[in-house]
Amino acid sequence: MSEPRPPAVQHDHKTDVPAAERFAARTAGMTASEIRALFAVASRPEVVSLAGGMPNLAALPLDALSAEVADLVAREGQTALQYGSAQGIPLLREQICEVMAEEGIRADPDDVVVTVGSQMALDLVTRIMCDPGDVVLAEGPSYVGALGSFAAYQARVVHVAMDEHGLIPDVLRHTLRTLAAEDIVPKFLYTIPNFHNPAGVTLSVERRAEVLEICASHGVAVVEDNPYGLLGFSGVRYPALRSMDRDVIYLGSFSKTFASGLRVGWALVPPAVRDRLVLAAESATLCPPSFNQMLVSRYLAGHDWRAQIKTFTEAYRERRDAMLAALETYLPEGCSWNVPDGGFYVWLTVPEGVDTKAMLPRAVTARVAYASGTGFYADGLGSRQLRLSYCYPPPERITEGVRRLARVLEAELDVVRTFGSSARPALRPGPQAPSPHTP
Amino acid sequence: MSEPRPPAVQHDHKTDVPAAERFAARTAGMTASEIRALFAVASRPEVVSLAGGMPNLAALPLDALSAEVADLVAREGQTALQYGSAQGIPLLREQICEVMAEEGIRADPDDVVVTVGSQMALDLVTRIMCDPGDVVLAEGPSYVGALGSFAAYQARVVHVAMDEHGLIPDVLRHTLRTLAAEDIVPKFLYTIPNFHNPAGVTLSVERRAEVLEICASHGVAVVEDNPYGLLGFSGVRYPALRSMDRDVIYLGSFSKTFASGLRVGWALVPPAVRDRLVLAAESATLCPPSFNQMLVSRYLAGHDWRAQIKTFTEAYRERRDAMLAALETYLPEGCSWNVPDGGFYVWLTVPEGVDTKAMLPRAVTARVAYASGTGFYADGLGSRQLRLSYCYPPPERITEGVRRLARVLEAELDVVRTFGSSARPALRPGPQAPSPHTP
Repeated sequence: MSEPRPPAVQHDHKTDVPAAERFAARTAGMTASEIRALFAVASRPEVVSLAGGMPNLAALPLDALSAEVADLVAREGQTALQYGSAQGIPLLREQICEVMAEEGIRADPDDVVVTVGSQMALDLVTRIMCDPGDVVLAEGPSYVGALGSFAAYQARVVHVAMDEHGLIPDVLRHTLRTLAAEDIVPKFLYTIPNFHNPAGVTLSVERRAEVLEICASHGVAVVEDNPYGLLGFSGVRYPALRSMDRDVIYLGSFSKTFASGLRVGWALVPPAVRDRLVLAAESATLCPPSFNQMLVSRYLAGHDWRAQIKTFTEAYRERRDAMLAALETYLPEGCSWNVPDGGFYVWLTVPEGVDTKAMLPRAVTARVAYASGTGFYADGLGSRQLRLSYCYPPPERITEGVRRLARVLEAELDVVRTFGSSARPALRPGPQAPSPHTP
Repeated sequence: MSEPRPPAVQHDHKTDVPAAERFAARTAGMTASEIRALFAVASRPEVVSLAGGMPNLAALPLDALSAEVADLVAREGQTALQYGSAQGIPLLREQICEVMAEEGIRADPDDVVVTVGSQMALDLVTRIMCDPGDVVLAEGPSYVGALGSFAAYQARVVHVAMDEHGLIPDVLRHTLRTLAAEDIVPKFLYTIPNFHNPAGVTLSVERRAEVLEICASHGVAVVEDNPYGLLGFSGVRYPALRSMDRDVIYLGSFSKTFASGLRVGWALVPPAVRDRLVLAAESATLCPPSFNQMLVSRYLAGHDWRAQIKTFTEAYRERRDAMLAALETYLPEGCSWNVPDGGFYVWLTVPEGVDTKAMLPRAVTARVAYASGTGFYADGLGSRQLRLSYCYPPPERITEGVRRLARVLEAELDVVRTFGSSARPALRPGPQAPSPHTP
């Protein structure tokens, strides 16, 4: 443990900062999500929000779940309402192994740690792995919630570029060599191989083996975040990185395949990592809610969860198709986007000169919201990109939303043609903190 | 953000530590709870566990709760199972203000942040306040879960002694002067004023004002942890520190007054702290479970929660009385303990020469478990103390447990009389990490 740093303390004291506001250095990296700054407006019913990553729960069998949860409290209330173990309920950890088997993972329930959503698993993995200044590799762009956790632990994010087949191995190799020249070995590569948030792309099978080899040869751990893997539209299941390498730290979640409001996720980790992760989890929340774990366990045991995922996926495919059709129909020249084969997101690049962050307030005024690209980079890139989510609104609303966005883009382009850029004073700067509206 | 530290990284790399095991420095402070190390044995039905802090839920109206939760899912499932805001549901935050009003607190729901148990609030307050090496003051002994969070953020704990009236103002004053001489101003005083865990004592009303004055005059924030305040046996309600000073950071919980398995707690903080706390909470879990928050909200709105707390309290008083009677009847000469006026715990001091940590395995073999004192200190003190919890077992089991403990103590004292000490090679050393079995 390092020594107290008197100067800082003395300084705070002398400058009469209120006692409760002598914050830790790490808070400097925490800044508000511009999505949240706009949320009050963006959440008005007349606004079509293509910004959020809220799953569509309309297809959930609420009556059956209502009966299930009533029975849980009536029969097992004394356990469900009581503290449990920090690692999570053994039966649920066994069932989680069955879920992971869908993507080729063979795991021991002893190596599973249940967390309050996979966000908590990601936050705690960063806690036990990263000292301030440590380097973490992440795709560019990357999940805003991951960037928030990395910032909270003062890790330095180095992005690795993607193309339509996901993370580019040659770029990864080059990045690691460049860092090695500075004697820097990143603590881990954080990657979302399936239906990437926000880029929407999927890492090809050939590249999966290559990425694992490159990281292994450089002594870099791999953290695989896979909330969308079971939500593929083509029916193809890609092998999880963890199914190819037992040293991979794997993060999973029920937020997109069952119910995000229960906040049940997990980490599958090597034993040495597990022991520290459990201790970190005890510091963080003592234990995950027994009630939520037992409900998820009953759902997995008593309901056809695979059929439910199929139902969800069909709804998402229909929405994706609506969005792609609308983009083709309405968007002006010079826009480009990917065609996601699963998950929730389309990553859109707008014409030269348009600044998506500066455009956002005008889009919301035009009653459409999106997530601007800069929030998904730790290094300020992304001003020509934005993320569109097709997961939540019904197809006709998606179409209308894209139509409105197209009009806003046309107006921006008029400004660009006149002034060369559409940028105006932006909203609050800095990396976005994660927001429930952009999971 | 500080620079990467190549030597450390290079060292890890060169010594061929597995990539996934290049842990952060902070993990050095994380060691397993000896309670948990013994839990497999201690949880056998034949063992009377006086170690855990699990609330007694026998009096909960499970049928009514079953109907409530069924209705929640059937009518509001689309909201209850969906992501919510990181700060927590507005209605619940209003109701939390009503709960706090029971202890004289007048608060604005905008300043309440709902968390996954108050442990999460404590962990996140430490996250936003403490840099490595910062000093935190805490009563000696203090809550093991707090020591775990302080260790996780590499804060240095300085204990302040208590007597039967709680924290001793003169000792606090002297400690602050001593630290000031080193130019150290602690980030905050962490205190449990009511029915202290583990000491069982309550801070007198006169001392409350004095403690607040001392901290204010030294520019030290106060973090008030109050999970037991409504569980007093005499019917007296002590004014919360927060009711006397709006700058106090207040932590509350439903774990002891309703249901620990729902993991719903909160922090009431000044606005500048709230903004950072919400950002930290987003990094930690995105948002607390909507489902759990809505169930607690319905419980507070639709049930006589004050009467339920009275019922809980009567059960705890009966158990406390059973424990005190058994201690008087069975314990050998030279033991001393406090008489708690509420809460869950008796803090026992054993005769000179007896080491409670070394004795624990022998106690468990004799079918009684307790929490040894050293786990409640960051500085190795407490070897002559232990914590007895009367919250969970029925009175006759408590009596039997104390009887068994007395026999073990007698045997230890025989060893002490012969060899001068009962200490033998102890269990895993180091400060205890929090465990659900010692909340």
